[in-house]
Amino acid sequence: MEIDYSNIKVIGFDADDTLWVNETYFRDTEHAFAKLLTEYETENKIDQELFKKEMENLPLYGYGVKGFVLSMIESAMDISNGKCDIKTISEILELGKRMINHRVELLEGVEEVLASLSDNYRLLLLTKGDLLDQERKLEKSGLEAYFNHVEVLSEKKEANYARLLDHLQIPVEEFLMIGNSLKSDVLPLVNIGAQAVHVPFHTTWQHELVDEDNVTDNYLKIHEIKNILAYL
Amino acid sequence: MEIDYSNIKVIGFDADDTLWVNETYFRDTEHAFAKLLTEYETENKIDQELFKKEMENLPLYGYGVKGFVLSMIESAMDISNGKCDIKTISEILELGKRMINHRVELLEGVEEVLASLSDNYRLLLLTKGDLLDQERKLEKSGLEAYFNHVEVLSEKKEANYARLLDHLQIPVEEFLMIGNSLKSDVLPLVNIGAQAVHVPFHTTWQHELVDEDNVTDNYLKIHEIKNILAYL
Repeated sequence: MEIDYSNIKVIGFDADDTLWVNETYFRDTEHAFAKLLTEYETENKIDQELFKKEMENLPLYGYGVKGFVLSMIESAMDISNGKCDIKTISEILELGKRMINHRVELLEGVEEVLASLSDNYRLLLLTKGDLLDQERKLEKSGLEAYFNHVEVLSEKKEANYARLLDHLQIPVEEFLMIGNSLKSDVLPLVNIGAQAVHVPFHTTWQHELVDEDNVTDNYLKIHEIKNILAYL
Repeated sequence: MEIDYSNIKVIGFDADDTLWVNETYFRDTEHAFAKLLTEYETENKIDQELFKKEMENLPLYGYGVKGFVLSMIESAMDISNGKCDIKTISEILELGKRMINHRVELLEGVEEVLASLSDNYRLLLLTKGDLLDQERKLEKSGLEAYFNHVEVLSEKKEANYARLLDHLQIPVEEFLMIGNSLKSDVLPLVNIGAQAVHVPFHTTWQHELVDEDNVTDNYLKIHEIKNILAYL
């Protein structure tokens, strides 16, 4: 593809797995969850059932840790046929609180990239999930000062981005989004005429997966966030 | 107090218990929750324990239904000394889903007030709670078109309002907030130099209560939202 970022004035960053580690903690928690139910099912089957439950509850609960915990609880009851111990439920609640209280671990190069780009561009943080949870992570990250604006969205689809750019009075051709999810951070932007950069994280939640062969090539893919500095 | 709204150009509305019924459903759910645990404690004691648990978890979970459900589950285990049935947990999850799926019941006069004020003022919806839950209620309410901007805040304190008005480039002296909570919708605004109107709802969550005798009188109190039309 031809890359021309000369129009870009505003850069949006995804947060989870773009600026800091997130999916890894979900995977660790899923693993701990499976261990709690090991007498009822294999880990593989438990993973599948939990994911099914999360998808079923997504329209009700949305993204984030609290909905995940509620789905784990419901799933534990289903998987054990209502036979699991009340102590299991208590341990699931603890797993959730541990996730919420987890320290924020920045990905390599993030601070350097933000420090450098904030001199010449207006930077936005655009994330989805629990409002409070995301605000808390941003505060813990120490990155707050780099961003002109922070927005937690309930979804990251074309309409959500279009509405936000309109509200912030940013012309699409001046906007570039950087994130780890093709589905949420790249494709919707390309589809509305903005630009996007894909920085994959080593782990991607099943719900965020798309078949890369079928997607447009109108975006840049880099392997480490600091590589973006060669283009901007 | 002297009332002069001639500077006002932008009006913010709280949502829960200002535009539509909310607290009533929480109270109904608390009542159903107490019934599930009737063999362990009196309803009064159960209410107290649940509220204590909610306050304990508030910094972690924030406002909204999902955090409330998680606190009910934890509370049920505490109140029953870990002896409650796993079916109780399942019924608590159901109570939560029922709250999320509840229809939106507009308060009297709301639509008339918004229709009238939207001709001459820029209207904002400023609420706290779960992002997805509040967006869903707004959509169900059919009121979306009246608002120029909608913001779900994680807290409604002075700093949150000041930041928002700054971001939206609204001078404080041009802003009036209308809501049912003295603590969240009135006092922080008066304290930052904006104006505020208090429209009490018949039920107030304990966490939102303040002693009215100790507060400033620099705000207007009305008994029905449509009474505001006499002043604006």
